[in-house]
Formats: sequence, C-alpha cells, structure tokens
Amino acid sequence: MMKNNPLNPPLLRGNFSGTIHVGLIGFGTVGTGMATVLMEQEKLIARRLGANLVLTQIADVDIKRSRGINIKKISLTTNPYEIILNPKIDIIVELIGGIEPACKFILDAISHGKHIVTANKALLATHGEKIFKAAEEAGVEILFEGAVGGGIPIIRVMKEGLSADKITAIFGIVNGTSNYILTKMSEEGSGFSKVLKEAQSLGYAEADPTLDVGGGDSAHKLAILALLAFGTPIPVKDIFTEGIDKVAPMDIAFAEAFGYKMKLLAIAKQVKGKLEARVHPTMIPKDEILAKVNGVFNAVCVVGKSVGETLFYGRGAGSIPTGSAVVSDLISIARNILNQQGYGKPHRVPVPPTGIISSARLPLPIKPMAEIESRYYLRFMVEDRPGVLSAISGVLGRHHISIASVIQQGRKEAGAVPLVMMTHKAREKDIQMALEKINQSDSVYKPTVLIRVEGKDIDQFLPFKGRLGGDGI
Amino acid sequence: MMKNNPLNPPLLRGNFSGTIHVGLIGFGTVGTGMATVLMEQEKLIARRLGANLVLTQIADVDIKRSRGINIKKISLTTNPYEIILNPKIDIIVELIGGIEPACKFILDAISHGKHIVTANKALLATHGEKIFKAAEEAGVEILFEGAVGGGIPIIRVMKEGLSADKITAIFGIVNGTSNYILTKMSEEGSGFSKVLKEAQSLGYAEADPTLDVGGGDSAHKLAILALLAFGTPIPVKDIFTEGIDKVAPMDIAFAEAFGYKMKLLAIAKQVKGKLEARVHPTMIPKDEILAKVNGVFNAVCVVGKSVGETLFYGRGAGSIPTGSAVVSDLISIARNILNQQGYGKPHRVPVPPTGIISSARLPLPIKPMAEIESRYYLRFMVEDRPGVLSAISGVLGRHHISIASVIQQGRKEAGAVPLVMMTHKAREKDIQMALEKINQSDSVYKPTVLIRVEGKDIDQFLPFKGRLGGDGI
Repeated sequence: MMKNNPLNPPLLRGNFSGTIHVGLIGFGTVGTGMATVLMEQEKLIARRLGANLVLTQIADVDIKRSRGINIKKISLTTNPYEIILNPKIDIIVELIGGIEPACKFILDAISHGKHIVTANKALLATHGEKIFKAAEEAGVEILFEGAVGGGIPIIRVMKEGLSADKITAIFGIVNGTSNYILTKMSEEGSGFSKVLKEAQSLGYAEADPTLDVGGGDSAHKLAILALLAFGTPIPVKDIFTEGIDKVAPMDIAFAEAFGYKMKLLAIAKQVKGKLEARVHPTMIPKDEILAKVNGVFNAVCVVGKSVGETLFYGRGAGSIPTGSAVVSDLISIARNILNQQGYGKPHRVPVPPTGIISSARLPLPIKPMAEIESRYYLRFMVEDRPGVLSAISGVLGRHHISIASVIQQGRKEAGAVPLVMMTHKAREKDIQMALEKINQSDSVYKPTVLIRVEGKDIDQFLPFKGRLGGDGI
Repeated sequence: MMKNNPLNPPLLRGNFSGTIHVGLIGFGTVGTGMATVLMEQEKLIARRLGANLVLTQIADVDIKRSRGINIKKISLTTNPYEIILNPKIDIIVELIGGIEPACKFILDAISHGKHIVTANKALLATHGEKIFKAAEEAGVEILFEGAVGGGIPIIRVMKEGLSADKITAIFGIVNGTSNYILTKMSEEGSGFSKVLKEAQSLGYAEADPTLDVGGGDSAHKLAILALLAFGTPIPVKDIFTEGIDKVAPMDIAFAEAFGYKMKLLAIAKQVKGKLEARVHPTMIPKDEILAKVNGVFNAVCVVGKSVGETLFYGRGAGSIPTGSAVVSDLISIARNILNQQGYGKPHRVPVPPTGIISSARLPLPIKPMAEIESRYYLRFMVEDRPGVLSAISGVLGRHHISIASVIQQGRKEAGAVPLVMMTHKAREKDIQMALEKINQSDSVYKPTVLIRVEGKDIDQFLPFKGRLGGDGI
C-alpha cells in the first residue's frame, strides 16, 4: 500500500525521499479519525503532494483496544518519546488534549526539530504564545486547523484568506454541543436538562458536559481566533464566559416573539482601539445567516473592513471532519518540506496552481446533460378540462417519471391554467422527451417551464408530497 | 509612506531588500480596489510579511482619469511591457479582464519570470491549463483568489483547507447580479425586466448584463472550481448553462408554495466516476442554508466525503472585497519570496503561526466587561399590578438605559408574570447597576434574566419597536 514514489518520478527532483513520516501522540477519537482520513485518501494526498504521507508511529496509553481500522503497518508504543526521538519522523501530531503532558510533549518535539500539528484548543488558548515562540526559534511549523471549527478551515481563512483585511469583529458558533441543545430547545420547547440528557444519549454531549455547555470550550476557541484576528493574546480568564445551562425555554420563546434566535456566541470586536472578548447566550435577528446555523453545525462570521461580512460554516466536531482538518495541516507542512527539498525549481511553489500536481491529474469524464438525474419542477399551461392531468401524467409515466406532488391553481376566467408538478428523481433525457410530446398536445397552450430541483433528502421538504388532484383537471 | 524595513531589522535575514514590488496591468474597478486596500492596509501587511509590499507601477489605456486615490508615488504607463520587462517588479497583477490581450500579457510576464495574480475568470476558465503549465515550467506562482467569490477565500479553501478531503459536490451562488435580481423578484413579486432595470440603476448590473444573467459568468467560475475540486478541466462549452432571464414570478411563487427558494446555482458533482457540471435556475429547500443567501451575496457549498457539508459566504463582487482577495494573493506570494530569501531559517516557514510575525505584534488592550455596550433582553418576573412597569422603567431611565420594546404576557392565575424588554444600546455597567436595584424591589419576585443581543442594524428587526404598555402593569 505505501510504496515510494507512486507518481511520475521526474517530478520528484532533489534529494527527496518520496515519503513524509508522521507520528501521532494520542489515539483517541480525533486520532482515529485522522488515521482513517490518511488511509482512505492516501492516493488523493499523493496526487496533491507528489509524495507519500505516511502514518508511521502511534503512541497512546492504550495500544490494545481496537479502533476499527487497519493499523498493521504502524508501529505502536506507549512511550511518546519513541516518536519524539525518532529521527525518521518529520511531523508529530498531538491529539491527547488537555494542558499537560501535551504541552511538554510538544515543546520537547519542537526542540527535537519536529514540525507540529495539534487540535488542542485548551493548550493553545493557555500556552499558545510560549509554544509559537519555541516553534519560531526552532524553525519548525506548528499548525492547528483542527483546534477551532472542526472541518471548517477557519484558521487558514484568518491567516491567509483574509490576510489583506483589517478584521473588526468575529461572531462564532463554535461549540456544537451547545448549538445542538439550543436548537432542540427552540424546536421542541423543552428545558435544558431534558435536552442535555438526550444529547448525551446520542453522543452529542459528553458525560461531563461542563466545558461545552458552560462556555469554556468556546472561550478557548475565541482566544485562538482573536489572537489570529487582532494579534492580541487574551488570557482565557479575561474572557467573560457564560454558558447555556441557565437558558430557559421561556426566554427562547420570547426571543422568537421579538424576531430573534438564541445562540451561544463567541464574540470578539475591535471597538475604538480596545478589544472586547466574550462568550454568552446571545439573541440574533432571525433573518441573519448566523441565526440559521442549527444542530451540531458551527459557523464563524468574520467581519473585515474591506470584505464586509463573511461566514464559514460546517461540522465543528466529529472524528472524521476534525481528522480531515488535521490531515490538511499535514499536507501543508509536507508541501513546505518537499518544496525545500527541491520540488518546483527554480522558484519553489509549495501549492500547485490547481492544488494537484499537474502530472498527477486523473480527469473524470464529463457526463452529457441528457444523462443527469434530478428532481424537476414542471409548470404546464393547460386547458382547464377533465382528462388533462391524466393525459400528462400518463406521458410522464411512460417516460419513467414519477410525480411527487401537484398544485393546481384556481380556475381562470378564460384560457390556460397552470398545472404545477414536482417529480421524483428522473433522467434529463426522459424529461426532455416527455415534454416534447406533452408540448405538442392541443390542451397545452405554452411550452412547459422546467426548473431543476436540488437538495439533500429533498422529499422530506415537500409539503404536498403525494397529494394529487385538484378540481376539474 | 513607503519606507524600507519599518520593522525590527533582525527579522529580515538573508539578502533581502525589504520591499516586494508589484506592477498592475488594468486600472479599472478592481484595480482601484486593490490599490486602495494595499495603501489602506500598508502597515498591517508589513506586520504580516516583515517587509513592505508596494504598488510600484500601473499600466492602463487611460492613465489620466482620477480614480479618487493618491497614486503620486506610482509610475504610470500606457504600455504594459514597461511593467513586464521591468526587472524591479516581482509580481504582476492582471486586472484587465477578457481573453486577449490579457492572456498574452500573462504568458509574456511568466516567461520573464514574474509571479502572477489575476482575477480573470473568463481567461482561467478558457486557457487556465495553458497558463498554469507555463507558470509551472517557469517556476513562478499564479494565484487567482479574486476570480471566484470576490472576497470569499474559496480558492484557498479548495486548494489547502479541504486538501485532505475527496470533494463530491459543489453548489455555488457565484453571481451577485443574478442573486440580487432573484431575491428582489422573490421579495416583491416583480418581473425580471423591471428588477433588472432597478439593478442597473443601482450599479448591481452592467449595461450589458448578458454574461451575468445569462449564466456565462457562473459557468466560468464553475469551470475553475471544478478544476480545483476534481482535477478535471471542463471546456466552458460543455457546461450546460441556463440563465435567470426566463424565470417568471409565477414560478418563484409556486416554488415558495412547495417550500423552495429559486437560486441560480453552479453545480458540479462527482457521480459514479463521472462529472456533472451545469448552471441553471434551481429550486432548493427553503430551510437549507444556501437558500438564505440573499441579495448581492455569494456562497459556495462544498460537500466532502470526510467533512460533509461546508459553506463559505460573503460579498462575491465589488471593488474593495475583490481587491482585498487580490492583495491576499500578493501576500501569499510575497511570503514565499521572502521565505526563499532566508526569513525563518533553518526551516523556512512562509506563514507565521499566528499570521503576523511575532516581533510585529501590536496587541490591543482588552476592554473590561463592565465597559462593553450592547442591546439587552431583560425578563423581569414581577407582581401583576399597576405601577410596576413605571417603577422599573424609571430605574432603567435613571441609569441611561432606554427601552426599545416591551412584551407583557397574559395575567397568570397567581404570582409572578413575565415582563420582557428589549433595550437600545446601553453600557453593561449601567445595566448591572440598574438590575441590582430592580432586583431588590418587593414587586420583583426572581433575579432578572439578562441576555445580550447582537446584530447589524438591529432596530429594524424589532417587531415591537417603541410599543410600550400592556394591561395592568
């Protein structure tokens, strides 16, 4: 599986080994997610790098328990210093969480010249400055995309995407557990304790939920975001922090009466040369896009002087999304390592223009439009008489098109009436052929309007699902 | 204004001049935006780079017209080859748009060893592969964050943020003009032509709107996004493209009756080893977050195998947001140039851990919570008798807190009734002092619930604005 140089060898110039070796300290939920992503996307990653990125060694207190993935080729140890001192390892991923011993492991790894990837928000919020300084002095990289917003690449957005802008404010929904609970309380009118228990049974809240529902986790993430946005380290104790545990269903209901949604927001604002940083339940107008962020999803709204309002949305937690963020950091560091080893001379370009090295393209064939499948909205302008619906649905049926719902508007004074349908999934070619036939009918007064319909699990959104008929047609 | 080495000199190691020189070809709307951002954020950019990033030369057919910005120190020319052949210029920004002569200028600049930044979606969609190949062979960088999504850093997200993930689908609202028109048609029930005229008079649509409302601009952007997501170059002619010019208000109304919103979507999906790419008016369930993207805003929803659904939202056009994206590209290239000139030895780290070089921090003072200003939701549990509202609002008034609206719920059988208020902006300290006093009153049965309220232009969202009173209190 892990051969060297799987790709076009001429790309791999310089004294380059063809493999970047990764060591992982902490084989828990996110560690397992990261290992899964690395293995599942092995080929894609090789196409992005022009080299292999291999998880070579894992340290954990428990190396017996099965994580449900194949780790036969990975060396396991209970001693993290076997990784920290291993000269073969290029990058060390710290995923044990908490302050100590994570801090000591990272600082020791830095002093041994290892690049670091971590998702440890508590540690970075508390000792970030010390760790970043050590990395800078040792000339190693430290990346932490998984620390905030799970799979949302908000750290890169702040450091690179919005690098030309003066950030004026951040509003973040950065704790999925709290957002899930508030969403459920709002939808069901239930109280905090009841919803918390449900969330715990679904695995959306931990047995001890204090750090999540008390706002502490959000405060850690805010400290990291504010450091990137404003260049200001904020001691976590200076962040006013109030959780959702005292939010009453009555206040959520009143919020809605006023036109607001209740969210646990992490807020940092630059106001007249001073910085505000706080975490608390917050009402936001229901029409703002942040108010639509529901369930376990996270989102960070970043306001910049030039760019105005931006928003970055996705899954803020979970083994695979966060693992994927950790691997994106590994790819960035690997690109820089390879770059310095000579790929892309004369000027060295760590990131290829399209994100995949040009010799490793595997273009997909493009599907002709006739072959796509979609749901369709169809508006027929028809004569208002019995039998028309039957004739039209007969043609559709003969072309394998099944109708999900129908609306018929009130009878017009004279002339055509609209007959509107939503179909289930159908093939474009079948739809076009059916419409060609239908449009030739004497009862159809105008060319039929066709609009394609997209959406996840679309059927559940159909208010008229299965309701056929109407009067007269 | 543009001094050399404004920062701590020991940072600037190696044979490094302290200034990266930029040449601009095309001084139109986005060019002016880019120059504005570069000048306004000069100091912030120097803190990110540890060097100056200076716009040295501009070429345009019209160098007489005032752009409303100070360009006294910039050399102007009508001949782009004065920039392309200028050995002092490190990076050339192409912002003339269209295919030719932009393509020739870029290829010639590449062959003279210049790094390239462009926002030219038509060119990249048509000749991207040729240009990327030339850049790779010449060992220069080419970045194009401004080409899709204006100020939304979607290009970096695809190339770096989601680099560990297999992308399965992209759904983009990538044309602000079309989205503005569809939003207005939906809100007002007006027809396409009427809204287009309004959009033109507001500057949201061009005199010839064909490329925007016909879907061509979205198709260009989709070609670029699909190349990044799937590594597949798609000829623009192979993208099925249908614009919004035939969308009827009736269909928007029916869509809403079915629970959908109408959007012009650019869609690319990987389905069973084939790629679909199409642009057309699309109905999406109204509860999906993409359905909430209104007006001139853009958003790209990227679905990945690991990360699931993500969404990136912001201003998709406009001189300053797009200019800011162009400058973020300049910063990335400048970081790599400096990196190769020796900053950050022994390992070279182009992007500092916090995005700002550590010696250039300018931390902001942190505001104590008592000094923040917010709007507040207050729920008093009070005795249901005349005079209570007057007493409470009196205390609030004496603490400079003004009430925006009040809700009083129906009388309870016995005991406390809720009295709920939204305040205008007030100081936290004043609120806390007022509540301390109010909570001591015999008519107030429980500690008052306080929830802070955030939102842009919040007053316009208050349904009960200024409505005071209720019965009994």
